[in-house]
Amino acid sequence: MQYFEDFAVGQRFSSGRRRVEAAEITAFAAEYDPQPFHLDDVAGQASVFGGMAASGWHTAAMTMRLLVPSAFQPAGGIVGFGGELAWLKPVRPGDELCVESEIIATRPSQSRPGQGLVTVRVTTLNQHGETVQTFTPTLLVDRRPR
Amino acid sequence: MQYFEDFAVGQRFSSGRRRVEAAEITAFAAEYDPQPFHLDDVAGQASVFGGMAASGWHTAAMTMRLLVPSAFQPAGGIVGFGGELAWLKPVRPGDELCVESEIIATRPSQSRPGQGLVTVRVTTLNQHGETVQTFTPTLLVDRRPR
Repeated sequence: MQYFEDFAVGQRFSSGRRRVEAAEITAFAAEYDPQPFHLDDVAGQASVFGGMAASGWHTAAMTMRLLVPSAFQPAGGIVGFGGELAWLKPVRPGDELCVESEIIATRPSQSRPGQGLVTVRVTTLNQHGETVQTFTPTLLVDRRPR
Repeated sequence: MQYFEDFAVGQRFSSGRRRVEAAEITAFAAEYDPQPFHLDDVAGQASVFGGMAASGWHTAAMTMRLLVPSAFQPAGGIVGFGGELAWLKPVRPGDELCVESEIIATRPSQSRPGQGLVTVRVTTLNQHGETVQTFTPTLLVDRRPR
């Protein structure tokens, strides 16, 4: 577990890998993003994606599932206020995703003396090394107890 | 359905409502964000959330589920490059969410003559009228066929 004081700009953390199954893409889409190009390959081919693609929210959720058990373990949990989210390439059935996290800023919290703010660039890559998503949240991280 | 030409800055679109059940919060968290404060009320009370709270990614996914059948129906589907995402308040079991969308910018695409770019502020509110999430994506929207 890393306290606020343990983080420094430039530190990097890697995740494991996760294979994206077609059935999971359609199940997530049916529940949360029921648009044809996330549910059906023919509709996907007729769309801007050129084939069935995972919902961006599914990619974001799978990214979180890779991040939670990764080497990045901020004290107090991964608790974010949000940040800039970008989807750069479609995620396809059979893709294998992994996540690289890099600390890009740290600063004490003005309002919470027991915590600090850590900004991390979370990059989601596919099996070709292509970036499919980036997310740059600012997280609330506990300080080391005295 | 709205083509690029149909959108103008200041237009607003409302969604229906969705009640957030505790069982859905824990099911989503177990699959995609298995942190204790999303899975258990006692752990939630010991956390910065002060009680069990939905994963931010669950809030984002529920927002999308409200948006897809709403009055906002861009031609070609809701297809985004991403944008700024902010979580402002915890989402709790029993909350009832709705989504308000407002067009804040439109411009032709330089690289895609058949499409334009529409930036929309998507605000997710709870039953008290409090904003729990904002997301400001830029979307790719089909132009009206000649």
